[in-house]
Amino acid sequence: MRASRFFISTLKEAPADAEIVSHQLMMRAGMIKRLGSGIYTYMPMGLRVIRKVEAIVRDEMNRAGAVELLMPVVQPAELWQETGRWQKYGAELMRVKDRHGRDFIIQPTSEEVITDIARTEIKSYRQLPVNFYHVQTKFRDERRPRFGLMRGREFTMKDAYSFDRDAASMKVSYQIMYDAYIRIFTRFGLEFRPVAADNGAIGGSGSHEFHVIADTGEDAIVYCPTSDYAANMEAAEAAPITLPRAAPTLALTKTATPGKAKCEDVAALLAVPLNQTVKSIVLTVEKEVDGKLDKQVWLLLLRGDHDLNEVKAGKVPGLADYRFSTEAEIVEWFGTPPGYLGPINTVKPVHVVADLSVAPMSDFICGANEADFHFTGANWGRDLPEPVTFDLRNVVAGDASPDGKGVLAIQRGIEVGHVFQLGTRYSEDMKATFLDENGKPQLLQMGCYGIGVTRILGAAIEQNFDAKGIVWPVSIAPFEVVLCPMGYDRNEAVKTAADNLLAGLLEAGVDAILDDRGERPGAMFADWELIGVPHRIVIGDRGLKDGKLEYQGRQETAATAVDLTGIIAFIRARLPA
Amino acid sequence: MRASRFFISTLKEAPADAEIVSHQLMMRAGMIKRLGSGIYTYMPMGLRVIRKVEAIVRDEMNRAGAVELLMPVVQPAELWQETGRWQKYGAELMRVKDRHGRDFIIQPTSEEVITDIARTEIKSYRQLPVNFYHVQTKFRDERRPRFGLMRGREFTMKDAYSFDRDAASMKVSYQIMYDAYIRIFTRFGLEFRPVAADNGAIGGSGSHEFHVIADTGEDAIVYCPTSDYAANMEAAEAAPITLPRAAPTLALTKTATPGKAKCEDVAALLAVPLNQTVKSIVLTVEKEVDGKLDKQVWLLLLRGDHDLNEVKAGKVPGLADYRFSTEAEIVEWFGTPPGYLGPINTVKPVHVVADLSVAPMSDFICGANEADFHFTGANWGRDLPEPVTFDLRNVVAGDASPDGKGVLAIQRGIEVGHVFQLGTRYSEDMKATFLDENGKPQLLQMGCYGIGVTRILGAAIEQNFDAKGIVWPVSIAPFEVVLCPMGYDRNEAVKTAADNLLAGLLEAGVDAILDDRGERPGAMFADWELIGVPHRIVIGDRGLKDGKLEYQGRQETAATAVDLTGIIAFIRARLPA
Repeated sequence: MRASRFFISTLKEAPADAEIVSHQLMMRAGMIKRLGSGIYTYMPMGLRVIRKVEAIVRDEMNRAGAVELLMPVVQPAELWQETGRWQKYGAELMRVKDRHGRDFIIQPTSEEVITDIARTEIKSYRQLPVNFYHVQTKFRDERRPRFGLMRGREFTMKDAYSFDRDAASMKVSYQIMYDAYIRIFTRFGLEFRPVAADNGAIGGSGSHEFHVIADTGEDAIVYCPTSDYAANMEAAEAAPITLPRAAPTLALTKTATPGKAKCEDVAALLAVPLNQTVKSIVLTVEKEVDGKLDKQVWLLLLRGDHDLNEVKAGKVPGLADYRFSTEAEIVEWFGTPPGYLGPINTVKPVHVVADLSVAPMSDFICGANEADFHFTGANWGRDLPEPVTFDLRNVVAGDASPDGKGVLAIQRGIEVGHVFQLGTRYSEDMKATFLDENGKPQLLQMGCYGIGVTRILGAAIEQNFDAKGIVWPVSIAPFEVVLCPMGYDRNEAVKTAADNLLAGLLEAGVDAILDDRGERPGAMFADWELIGVPHRIVIGDRGLKDGKLEYQGRQETAATAVDLTGIIAFIRARLPA
Repeated sequence: MRASRFFISTLKEAPADAEIVSHQLMMRAGMIKRLGSGIYTYMPMGLRVIRKVEAIVRDEMNRAGAVELLMPVVQPAELWQETGRWQKYGAELMRVKDRHGRDFIIQPTSEEVITDIARTEIKSYRQLPVNFYHVQTKFRDERRPRFGLMRGREFTMKDAYSFDRDAASMKVSYQIMYDAYIRIFTRFGLEFRPVAADNGAIGGSGSHEFHVIADTGEDAIVYCPTSDYAANMEAAEAAPITLPRAAPTLALTKTATPGKAKCEDVAALLAVPLNQTVKSIVLTVEKEVDGKLDKQVWLLLLRGDHDLNEVKAGKVPGLADYRFSTEAEIVEWFGTPPGYLGPINTVKPVHVVADLSVAPMSDFICGANEADFHFTGANWGRDLPEPVTFDLRNVVAGDASPDGKGVLAIQRGIEVGHVFQLGTRYSEDMKATFLDENGKPQLLQMGCYGIGVTRILGAAIEQNFDAKGIVWPVSIAPFEVVLCPMGYDRNEAVKTAADNLLAGLLEAGVDAILDDRGERPGAMFADWELIGVPHRIVIGDRGLKDGKLEYQGRQETAATAVDLTGIIAFIRARLPA
């Protein structure tokens, strides 16, 4: 490629709405252009990266035996009504009517369409297993699109759907995809981590997220450096504390804590460690029973130094549909404002549930259900009944790993892939069956597997950048090598050498671009450092006289002189096979 | 590829709604699957063809210096309001509101978005010319989707947009695209014809359509077999008839023609040639003048054997906004029902315009403006004023070519490409300017260039099929070669030879598929003939013993024995370089 035949458009400053580094750098490097909120044109430079990401994804999907097709962007509402997602999906689902007033959606994902295809195309167990995928434009009407390609509304996703005859076979298909994802993210050249994830409302038996590691990641991911354990924060289990509970040493005492509504403040006032305090979180569950609204109030107890895990709370029997109580509800039920609540001497009946780590506590501190007072010296069995316990909290660094093989660490990640065992979630609603060996209809067992193709670009940059710009891993860089001739338009020897080298590199299968725009060296170098091309070759008159070129890697601080005769081999050795 | 790892799904019968052969065969061959009216999933077999079409398109677009980007499917209404197309586009434009109630459209084309990009990205004449293209999903909410991929609602289009500094340079960019289209359609292996087209409402100075020739084509295209002249029916000019008008020989006579409202019937009754009759077509033009509706009635005269060209009619000064008059309007204005109208003795004033071919007539027959009567022996100058003439009719086979180099022929075509000189149609509305050498802002001169990627599939099949199924040109066939082993699952020699041959062909860059499904020969052959793979190699036990395989081209009636040792070279010789 020649820069004069390409379209390069760099900016000194990122627009004000670009809050994070990947968004800023993609805008500055001319990779994307904003069309509307969360909607971007992929400019030529950005599209090259997308195509390289897609090529790796396709290659590994095909190798794993998945078959590519292409499902439509605009999908009839009827299928989404069959699975109930037309009703449940909410405002993120972009709905549209055609000229006849019929309802359609702009697809955010394609479970319904692929299940519709499967129920007509898959007739016999002999056709199984099969895995279909497509790489297609998706739309999610995010409430607050931001961060460029990280949380856009229109985006490109690879989504695959496996169909199997039974759960055991489905798990095999799942593992094949899991392994393919490992290869894909490895080939991207990104540091990543697969983590166990919660199946959430979809149900089913297993799920993993693939996270690109980056300090700026939205998600906290949990792992054990000395074992294979890894999970996202929602799913990471807190191992039960096995130390026995110490015997009480203090009497239960109502202690004045005026104005100290937070555990941190109470602990400071009373000069005790934070982990000696217990915080109380109030939840409301409302149900219609015989036409009347039945309201339950739950009190969740956590150690003062721990945070509630809202997903885990929802798994406590009876709490599936909880919400946080309002301040007015709390005052009405407890007769005291939040900050002074506790499980002892409640005015009205509450369901008390304690986190696993609260049960082994003794002589602990909790709210006294009276403004400006806490109890100190509280003890289970003596001052209140033995607790009902669940795992309710987010794990913290240093917690024991649930596999017993070390302690947990926490890092930040950006979710770019998700694999899911769906089981019969969709096949049941849509009556997608096949005939088994006995000619009996059986529900198809499904898995689904997504990769956020355009999101990969944002994640890769969040992980790989410096003060000069983007530092692309070579496998997804827009170009592998840039040739920067010094005086291309006025020095015949330089021009000839540059033209010949470009031809030689292309011939050798190297994705090279020659900057023949006639920019001055400083501007030229700054452009390509911003764009993030991994390898740069400078062709100058002086070096040429000695048969030398200057090579510099994107993150190297100095150039290396390389013989003109050996430059192609030199570059090839620095590229993926 | 192995058939067992692919997804093959053929049908004996096409669904009832498939009216045309390409739709029937694509459904039967499992290339597409209907999701909704005019909305199809591209199944694995169909997607392979689409990808081959796209690859040829991209290759030639890149070679022509166009730069690929990707514009969004969902586009904000504001841009479409700037050009007025939000108002004018009508019901085909799929409109959608986001969660905040803002208006968007699902793009049928991207002039607005690319012009928006150009007006911010193109600052200087030094950046020109530039040509951007994308291959993207489009949506047009057709009133009556039908014919499978030929008139669908969701489809894939390649659209390119050139930007130039002046009209002369724009014409150069246009010619480059025209030439690229010639290469593209040649590489598809399809019989095609570029024809001059009408620019229509868009204005501008030039336009060509590219038609795939097929008897079933929707469009009549006009060409001169002995010259380069070619145009679509709308644009094909009728050369003026240069023969002098013969002198009158008959008196004007009101002649009874009871119940004969058509020229054909009148000619038969009076035993004269049809081209001696003149038909009258009544048009209405309504305009608001000073708040009042001014209604004009026009009478267009054509020879009885000719058809009105509605596009040409719209170009007559004063007729830009015409519509056909209703029967009630005709009765009111002429005092007689349609079928007996004519230019002589009209009750109320009408604007009379005659086609070029009507002016040289003498002793002609026309309606007498009285039910069941025509005039015979009508003559210009004597019975009515000399006519105002325009080219108003569709040309017919045998007409003189307007370039004077022969006579016109007509064939049927399917429009699959369109190139367009837009001029400043969009840049003016959207104020898309660049700075010229003198630092003065100038409007960008634009061209746009479309290829209906998915439509190509339908058109290719309409042109290339037989009783057995599709006959793909090799360059866009889903596979180039199919290997059909006889007893793959039970004959070790056959299996080994088939596996080795597949590996050898893939190694040689041949896109081959091995049918290892274990189907019986008859079913296997029928599947691949239906799917339309151009080359078939049968691997049988008997032949192998003599070192022979059986080759048969898709349209050959008998097989050829080929040496196993030479088979790869044999096949390579039959494939595009």
